[in-house]
Amino acid sequence: MSKEITSREADYSQWYNDLVIKGQLADYSAVRGCMVIKPYGYRLWENMRDVLDKMFKDTGHQNAYFPLFVPKSLFEAEEKNAEGFAKECAVVTHYRLKNDPSKPGKLMVDPEAKLEEELVVRPTSEAIIWNTYKGWIQSYRDLPLLINQWANVVRWEMRTRLFLRTAEFLWQEGHTAHATKQEALEETTKMLDVYADFVENWMALPVIKGVKTAGERFAGAEDTYCIEALMQDGKALQAGTSHFLGQNFAKAFDVKFSDKENKLDYVWATSWGVSTRLIGALVMAHSDDDGLIFPPRIAPLQVVIVPIYKGEEQRTAIGGKVDQIVNDLKLLGISVKYDDSENARPGWKFAEYEMKGVPVRIAIGARDLQNNTVEVARRDTKEKMTVTIDGIAGFLQNLLDEIQVQMFNKAKQFQQERITEADSWAAFVQILDEKGGFVSAHWDGTAETEDKIKDLTKATIRCIPLNNPQQDGACILTGNPSRERVLFARAY
Amino acid sequence: MSKEITSREADYSQWYNDLVIKGQLADYSAVRGCMVIKPYGYRLWENMRDVLDKMFKDTGHQNAYFPLFVPKSLFEAEEKNAEGFAKECAVVTHYRLKNDPSKPGKLMVDPEAKLEEELVVRPTSEAIIWNTYKGWIQSYRDLPLLINQWANVVRWEMRTRLFLRTAEFLWQEGHTAHATKQEALEETTKMLDVYADFVENWMALPVIKGVKTAGERFAGAEDTYCIEALMQDGKALQAGTSHFLGQNFAKAFDVKFSDKENKLDYVWATSWGVSTRLIGALVMAHSDDDGLIFPPRIAPLQVVIVPIYKGEEQRTAIGGKVDQIVNDLKLLGISVKYDDSENARPGWKFAEYEMKGVPVRIAIGARDLQNNTVEVARRDTKEKMTVTIDGIAGFLQNLLDEIQVQMFNKAKQFQQERITEADSWAAFVQILDEKGGFVSAHWDGTAETEDKIKDLTKATIRCIPLNNPQQDGACILTGNPSRERVLFARAY
Repeated sequence: MSKEITSREADYSQWYNDLVIKGQLADYSAVRGCMVIKPYGYRLWENMRDVLDKMFKDTGHQNAYFPLFVPKSLFEAEEKNAEGFAKECAVVTHYRLKNDPSKPGKLMVDPEAKLEEELVVRPTSEAIIWNTYKGWIQSYRDLPLLINQWANVVRWEMRTRLFLRTAEFLWQEGHTAHATKQEALEETTKMLDVYADFVENWMALPVIKGVKTAGERFAGAEDTYCIEALMQDGKALQAGTSHFLGQNFAKAFDVKFSDKENKLDYVWATSWGVSTRLIGALVMAHSDDDGLIFPPRIAPLQVVIVPIYKGEEQRTAIGGKVDQIVNDLKLLGISVKYDDSENARPGWKFAEYEMKGVPVRIAIGARDLQNNTVEVARRDTKEKMTVTIDGIAGFLQNLLDEIQVQMFNKAKQFQQERITEADSWAAFVQILDEKGGFVSAHWDGTAETEDKIKDLTKATIRCIPLNNPQQDGACILTGNPSRERVLFARAY
Repeated sequence: MSKEITSREADYSQWYNDLVIKGQLADYSAVRGCMVIKPYGYRLWENMRDVLDKMFKDTGHQNAYFPLFVPKSLFEAEEKNAEGFAKECAVVTHYRLKNDPSKPGKLMVDPEAKLEEELVVRPTSEAIIWNTYKGWIQSYRDLPLLINQWANVVRWEMRTRLFLRTAEFLWQEGHTAHATKQEALEETTKMLDVYADFVENWMALPVIKGVKTAGERFAGAEDTYCIEALMQDGKALQAGTSHFLGQNFAKAFDVKFSDKENKLDYVWATSWGVSTRLIGALVMAHSDDDGLIFPPRIAPLQVVIVPIYKGEEQRTAIGGKVDQIVNDLKLLGISVKYDDSENARPGWKFAEYEMKGVPVRIAIGARDLQNNTVEVARRDTKEKMTVTIDGIAGFLQNLLDEIQVQMFNKAKQFQQERITEADSWAAFVQILDEKGGFVSAHWDGTAETEDKIKDLTKATIRCIPLNNPQQDGACILTGNPSRERVLFARAY
């Protein structure tokens, strides 16, 4: 199998696909729009999930599990939500197959096993969950209800891309219920902060926190908060969203609670989610033309050790030394693999682990053994150094920390250099076409203008940043008065 | 809400449902046959999953994720497997809803969005996985392939029961590929041993390992190995299965590999799974008429502390003491909750945690504070003891270990007393009707006799035990010659 990767410059989109496939993260499947997440990619997802899960639990949330299917009548109860997702719903209509009488050995849908009510495969779970919450919430004592679910969801997309946009994807969805609007709003921003913390400090990817315009809101939300990240091609990617749902779902599903004064009111809601799409962001933000580059804190594998030897005697001597290093690393909680397989030469292995984005590679040969040293190579900078084996575990722990920080700083600088103010339409278009990134510009606040800008440039308003400075100005398109700049970008 | 539980004697089946619902493990949902797993029940599943996942990884397996949907043409490729599951398949036929022109605000399935090929919601994943393995396996170097998946599956059951039999359930499914028959057989029994280890040593539930008769085999398997557990009503429950699939799926999906001599052969396969059904087994095996009883090693909560106080001053003093105990327990990795909520009286809390099966309850009042003691109550035996606070964490750790062992021993004794040999049809029927449990009896080895016994008594052959002594005898029904006894039981 050729490991050649298309360069970013030649074809950014193909480069991305090459990384995902040749880096062993995922594969296409026989099902249109669905992917197979391979063990190496799933390990990455497990690492991300475990960190997020702990963050959710530390902020008082519990996990639960709700049905995959949503009966149509429940699905349509919250009208805006239903309308927003109706066009991409996989629908179960039958519950049985039978032998096809006209084709021996083949099956057909049994027309007699038609469901009375169709079942939607969940594209998101607000409907089924709020219908359940109705039975769980009677009094203020039942609130807040802070629940998260790890699940698969299905959105029938016409154009799919591995991780970034697939018909089925894995995600978590938090669904909380509160007695007051204020508390629900606080939950919404608290979980946005959790997402930003995770993406910045674990994925080494700086984000901008903001709020979506009405046109970009989650269907059924009063407000959608988001974190936006920047990819190497200058396009933005929405990395997570946290929705303030007001009382919309409580009203649609008649979920009321009695407060301390025994007065009945509808419950306030939030929902928030991140998905396997984050893996796509991770890949696109950090990698290079030689393959994946993973930040150490969530890398599927942090350190790989490759022996260079001639003959069984050297191999055994190196193996003995490596055993010690491996044990020391494991004691520090560092994941490590000793690849002494004889199927491939060291050079091939180097390229393989470079492709797979392992943060640190160690090579050890006969001369190293004599000198009590190893060669340490960083994946991110490709820097190589000769290091003494004494205290190597501590050295590597520090190095992994340093790589984590430097990867974030590099991405942060890239992002900062690509937030550009535009004060004329010509400048706006030129920045989008030539430089990319976020364009900070005035907008007159109307959906009409927002749509027109999108039609003309394919750029959308990614967000109105939190704590945005108020500043009088003129809309970049219409010249109408504006009170603040918003962030535009072309996006995934 | 009344917490009254139906007694086992009055109605065993209702007793089970009461425990699941009132013990806060799960709830019915708006979707026929699907349940909601509530936070307390999901925490239990997380504990079980984490232990099993580590066992799988320790035996060399990696996790991956395959699509939820199986195109009909793939589903039907392995004919026996397809035939076995065809009658319980949820089928996706459309990918879009649209506004119903005749009913404003309502949606309908868009007839123009009919799929060219129907998609089966996976009832099990052999088909989609073996179709994928075809692309991953070329040479002996790609083997063994040892993959596990944690996922939801759907089997459209007509009669459902919380955890025991639901249309959607959560499970893990291992799917491995091997170069030789011998290696696949070893994998099959190795994973059976992993399951037995988990169920016995973590769930405190003794099992019998065996192999299924042809009639009870997994559809598409050459052999199905199983572990069988016994419930308090004397019925058996299949707690896990491990299948030797031979080359059936390799042939159906044309998965060949070249061996060291460059000769092509079909790959050998296994699959194995356990599901949320195990929670049903856990509940039914250990609990009593006052509620759930969980073994400490997987209990969602191991220790609960309830204060008994009058006035704020006592409350504060007790709280200070408890903080210390809580910290000490957490350092030992023991999960603990201090319930000082003012919504309920101590007596109500005692009943609540008894209902929820928390292994150890601690009560601490003003007099305890003076004496530097607490009252410790075991859930399993209801034994109460007064214990000094000095070294309480270590004491509780030992107590939890002791409870774990004693729960297993109790269940083991229950099982041993209910494996009864029958040498006449009259005795066979009488044991089934009066004593229950496993009946060890001779069988002539024919499917016809097996079916007839099932029709006459509702008892099935649970398994032919591993290492079964060979012994000449006469079939319990036909009197025909038999070489070994097999285990019959009525079962879930």
